[in-house]
Amino acid sequence: MPDASAALDAAALDQLFLEARTYNSFRPEPIDPAQLRCAYELARMAPTSANAQPMRLVFLVSPEAKAKLEPALSAGNRAKTMAAPATAIVAYDRHFYDELPRLFHDPAARSWFAGKSEHAERTAFRNGSLQGAYFILAARALGLDCGPMSGFDNAKVDAVFFPDGRWRSNFLINLGHGEPAGLFARNPRLGFDEACRIL
Amino acid sequence: MPDASAALDAAALDQLFLEARTYNSFRPEPIDPAQLRCAYELARMAPTSANAQPMRLVFLVSPEAKAKLEPALSAGNRAKTMAAPATAIVAYDRHFYDELPRLFHDPAARSWFAGKSEHAERTAFRNGSLQGAYFILAARALGLDCGPMSGFDNAKVDAVFFPDGRWRSNFLINLGHGEPAGLFARNPRLGFDEACRIL
Repeated sequence: MPDASAALDAAALDQLFLEARTYNSFRPEPIDPAQLRCAYELARMAPTSANAQPMRLVFLVSPEAKAKLEPALSAGNRAKTMAAPATAIVAYDRHFYDELPRLFHDPAARSWFAGKSEHAERTAFRNGSLQGAYFILAARALGLDCGPMSGFDNAKVDAVFFPDGRWRSNFLINLGHGEPAGLFARNPRLGFDEACRIL
Repeated sequence: MPDASAALDAAALDQLFLEARTYNSFRPEPIDPAQLRCAYELARMAPTSANAQPMRLVFLVSPEAKAKLEPALSAGNRAKTMAAPATAIVAYDRHFYDELPRLFHDPAARSWFAGKSEHAERTAFRNGSLQGAYFILAARALGLDCGPMSGFDNAKVDAVFFPDGRWRSNFLINLGHGEPAGLFARNPRLGFDEACRIL
């Protein structure tokens, strides 16, 4: 067990949070699939409710796969996404609870969600989003840059990539090594006293 | 700008992902409020849709504040939460879009959400969840341990802590320095080939 009582060094905090940016353009070299696997294998270790891990990832790297995505993208996201070395569809499995008997130590866990479609959907969306965020930071931790987006037509993506209706798209992430030339100026963040309270 | 093309070292990946655990018990010492602020100030830099930052955090540290939470907790989460040095209510601002004119470079952004309650709610829940995950990893990056939970009555928490209805609870995170003695055995994770596809 590492000494988890110490903070990471400043360079690591910069790489993960403080100097990392949402990139709009990327260097043209492809991403090694082993790096995508490694990022997933970091992200999957972070916590989800009942260890349910509802996130599913579809990495679009071939021109054919990218072309299937293109009509669903909003105008402002189209060119940069088609040019990115890879685009991940962050999705979630609406029937994630069918895996719980092998994923969670309490055999009752499947019954917490099965047949409760609203609770299951909210759990999948919440935890699939958490895992999408873990994946963004895992990719950054490995030296990749991300360009996450929700500006696209989810229903179109679902119809093309998930026609059986079991998986559902959540958001997209362009992946690669970012080109600083394509960056917007950094927008402001809410201060602690605006967004947080201590009671 | 740091050299973001290199991976963090193995100790950092362990601290963030591979060896970090969801803790059920914590050492009794209080958390320095400056550390909560620092974790927020890392997490807030990570990406959200239109830079909207819908997450709001309420840190419960006083016995009085903890006591207000207690009736909303599920039985299995009660004792460990009351004993934790701090519990964060990860919430979101349902009217996050009112801040967009000062947070985003496109002045039209508020109109993408205002008056579109279903789209606004989904955006707040997705991005508030992303930010909750960023906060978990930011806390770990600073040497804190987390115990996130969704086993509680959201409506009760909202009635007690957010009576005006503007903020809404999402999930909870116990915070402190974890006691390994309270850990469950680690549950399995889905393999890359189960959860991911490359097209």
